[in-house]
Amino acid sequence: MTSFAIVGHTATTDGTFSLNDLSGGAGRMDVLCRCVNASLFLSHSLRRDSECFLILQGKPGAPRTICFSGSSIRSLNPDERSPAALIKKALALPCGSEFRNAADGVAVRKSSLSRLLSEGAFAVLDENGTDIRKTDALPSAFLLSDHLSFTPEEEDLLAGCPRFSVGPSVLHAEHAILILLNEIDRRAAGWK
Amino acid sequence: MTSFAIVGHTATTDGTFSLNDLSGGAGRMDVLCRCVNASLFLSHSLRRDSECFLILQGKPGAPRTICFSGSSIRSLNPDERSPAALIKKALALPCGSEFRNAADGVAVRKSSLSRLLSEGAFAVLDENGTDIRKTDALPSAFLLSDHLSFTPEEEDLLAGCPRFSVGPSVLHAEHAILILLNEIDRRAAGWK
Repeated sequence: MTSFAIVGHTATTDGTFSLNDLSGGAGRMDVLCRCVNASLFLSHSLRRDSECFLILQGKPGAPRTICFSGSSIRSLNPDERSPAALIKKALALPCGSEFRNAADGVAVRKSSLSRLLSEGAFAVLDENGTDIRKTDALPSAFLLSDHLSFTPEEEDLLAGCPRFSVGPSVLHAEHAILILLNEIDRRAAGWK
Repeated sequence: MTSFAIVGHTATTDGTFSLNDLSGGAGRMDVLCRCVNASLFLSHSLRRDSECFLILQGKPGAPRTICFSGSSIRSLNPDERSPAALIKKALALPCGSEFRNAADGVAVRKSSLSRLLSEGAFAVLDENGTDIRKTDALPSAFLLSDHLSFTPEEEDLLAGCPRFSVGPSVLHAEHAILILLNEIDRRAAGWK
């Protein structure tokens, strides 16, 4: 299982957002949608061994964590609107501190980044980290930020996490996810 | 300069398509939009040395070729709707067989895949091709297909093109573009 988690600093937690304004009114929800699809899609199939956590920190009900599980997801298409519609469904569901299914392969809970970090050993994507091609053992869980940098408070939470870089250029979160998955695919197939 | 060209087999050439239905009514225009953004975006900046050609083969005015030039593009955002709005603008412009500017960094002409192939040495992305990491000299122009395979007629046009693979998994076109650019970035920065 490979896990990705993305902090959406401005992503709304109001499920009434418009699918026609993901980048504006929904607080750059477009970034998170592309990360979901980067984590789960192959050509004409899905990565059943991947999962993607979105940590939504926008108003009015932050924090919410939404998990997309490749093992059980259905009804996901590769355009931005498709995961966005599932996020709307998850946000419309009353939830507590434990995951509750909003749709096949989509679950939601009230919880923050610190909770997720306490549940797994996440590595951080960082342009100053170790080159992923140069490490013998790649981690299986990666944390990324959206279009904004991690806040100082978040960086405090991440102080003990290993840091990896996917290359010399600073990329969008979803692009970094794809390069990580390519490296993981290559190692699994003996292509390294 | 790195060039990408993507064949949109069903992508509409009617500029009145809805930005709210890119994957349906616009003939999987969402795929082409993601390819444009994969070709041109870095985090918080643009790849000024990349260009992306879209070959639109849908009704009613096919073929049209639209070129997005990283060197001169403006007003491009990383969500799918942003390049789609520029494609609408380009398709609304009367054009002939030579490129005509529709917006900064966006040009359109009436022309087909065979014309583009006659103008440059394109390599084809193909899961059975040579591993990009294993070749000493990477090409600078790459041709990809959208969600559909190349047709037999297109394959005839591509018979002499070198073929490269980005990894063991079969990926969406925009994902393959990102992995190619990562390899190109690494080589340029001495990271290989």
